[in-house]
Amino acid sequence: MTLPTANAALIALDWGTTSLRAYLLDGTGRTLQTRALPWGIMRLPERRADTPIPPAADDGFEIAFDEACGDWLRDQPHLPVIASGMVGSAQGWREAAYLDVPVDLSGIARLMTTIERPGRTSVHIVPGLIQHGDLPNVMRGEETQIAGILALRRSETADLLIGLPGTHSKWVRVRHGEVIHFDTYMTGEVYAALRDHTILGRTMVPNAPADPYGFARGLAVAGSPDGRAGLLSNLFSTRTLGLTGQLDGSAQADYLSGLLIGHEVASVLALQRAAGPLPRIVLCGQEDLCQRYVQALRLHGADDLELAPHATERGLWHLAQAAGLVPAQSV
Amino acid sequence: MTLPTANAALIALDWGTTSLRAYLLDGTGRTLQTRALPWGIMRLPERRADTPIPPAADDGFEIAFDEACGDWLRDQPHLPVIASGMVGSAQGWREAAYLDVPVDLSGIARLMTTIERPGRTSVHIVPGLIQHGDLPNVMRGEETQIAGILALRRSETADLLIGLPGTHSKWVRVRHGEVIHFDTYMTGEVYAALRDHTILGRTMVPNAPADPYGFARGLAVAGSPDGRAGLLSNLFSTRTLGLTGQLDGSAQADYLSGLLIGHEVASVLALQRAAGPLPRIVLCGQEDLCQRYVQALRLHGADDLELAPHATERGLWHLAQAAGLVPAQSV
Repeated sequence: MTLPTANAALIALDWGTTSLRAYLLDGTGRTLQTRALPWGIMRLPERRADTPIPPAADDGFEIAFDEACGDWLRDQPHLPVIASGMVGSAQGWREAAYLDVPVDLSGIARLMTTIERPGRTSVHIVPGLIQHGDLPNVMRGEETQIAGILALRRSETADLLIGLPGTHSKWVRVRHGEVIHFDTYMTGEVYAALRDHTILGRTMVPNAPADPYGFARGLAVAGSPDGRAGLLSNLFSTRTLGLTGQLDGSAQADYLSGLLIGHEVASVLALQRAAGPLPRIVLCGQEDLCQRYVQALRLHGADDLELAPHATERGLWHLAQAAGLVPAQSV
Repeated sequence: MTLPTANAALIALDWGTTSLRAYLLDGTGRTLQTRALPWGIMRLPERRADTPIPPAADDGFEIAFDEACGDWLRDQPHLPVIASGMVGSAQGWREAAYLDVPVDLSGIARLMTTIERPGRTSVHIVPGLIQHGDLPNVMRGEETQIAGILALRRSETADLLIGLPGTHSKWVRVRHGEVIHFDTYMTGEVYAALRDHTILGRTMVPNAPADPYGFARGLAVAGSPDGRAGLLSNLFSTRTLGLTGQLDGSAQADYLSGLLIGHEVASVLALQRAAGPLPRIVLCGQEDLCQRYVQALRLHGADDLELAPHATERGLWHLAQAAGLVPAQSV
């Protein structure tokens, strides 16, 4: 197999808690190859007999790194490497800096943390963001997606609300390129815990196909006067609608998803609208999950929406340029 | 050992999902003996070689029943038996009726479901309550506690809000002895799922002693302007306060408990107050859990409060009287 490294200019890693994605980019930022590995920082691989890295480098991060891009680097040893995500956390490969919010993201590339690997290629880790206050907030990885979104529209939009749905959804207010505030919603992780570890999961049909009607019904409840009873109360209707024959087991998981996303979006929009007019909303994340959020946002009257695909690799490319790891271009 | 059955008049069973409590009551309703067994309907015992019940009665309900009160019945075979709780659910010993809310609880004893056990003592199961509507609600077991609370104060208070904290907390509005509405909050079960199956549990010190300061802090956040971000957002502060050194691992479980109970109580009181003046609140449940709810209610300005201990055995006694299983008394 011929490696596509001839035109390569950068290796970019999106390294989170449960997965590792590696991108090989050319000198214009175009993606030449992508790899997805299950080696998140909480589930690193063990050394294999045929691992071609030096015996000293006997830790899981090195092994995962080698599987992600070792062949690219053996072919082109001078390719720079940039990484973002939980790889820079206290439980990661090397703890990277946090930048305090509010922060102008144009300067984020100045605070890279470098893992020096004697005789081998260094790895540059993007800083995360921290927001101090009564209830602090942190992100690692999403700042790169934000940078990717902003790189394409620096002059175009002064004010944005960026939504990053996922295990821990982030909602980020950006003004003139500056991140001024963000909130975290544990929606994805709470959904999985409720489905897998409470009575609500007992009557759900496992691996049922998506049920758009069940999802829409959950959204509607969260946004209705019944929603005022609060999430902890609404949750129980997943069970009682099933008990009374009004919600099939095959629809209950999506109904629960609708309740949770509906409560998240209702809270986010209420907070944002209390602070002033709602700006344009940009969603970035897994395609089908983003479509659920589009539906929730529209139900609540938020119609000025767009999706931002590929923001992670855009962001890593942009930050590598800003850090001087690859030559800057005039786009 | 001498059995205390000489003065016994009733065997009363509180039989839930995870536990079975048996009460032996005398002719005035006084408790002669109490037994607590781990044989909830979802974890019934298996047959033991020395089980003294007939071979035909080879199911878990019979075995658990025998362990709970078989010796009492062998001594006094004509003692009546009343039971309430999930033992009357579709997964229970025998599915019992549901009464539709609104309902006058004085008539509840007319709908007992009887398990006939040829040659042996019958078991009478109390009906549960169901509330129809867009979001239905159900209870099994709490109706007995409510009956116990009301039996002692029928003429005294026209309007009550009864709180029954637990795995699935119930909040029940009673007017002139009639249950007119109730809501369920999955607070206890959600707490356990979040603690045991999300990232929030990772930094908690296991089996830490209760931390009243951590609990009060969670309550305060839920009731503050920060609470408007919603529960799904507030939850994450359990982690970020830990990350930033502001909340010890030994306080994080109680902080999470405070957040959840705080959101539950805030929603309950907002709904109740939207409907009119807040009536007296009666709390019934595990003592230390009730104290947490007292603290939450007081923080939100609900000061007309009392605790109702022993409501389950009071209720079972009262319903047995109303059903004619034991002679009615003039109290």
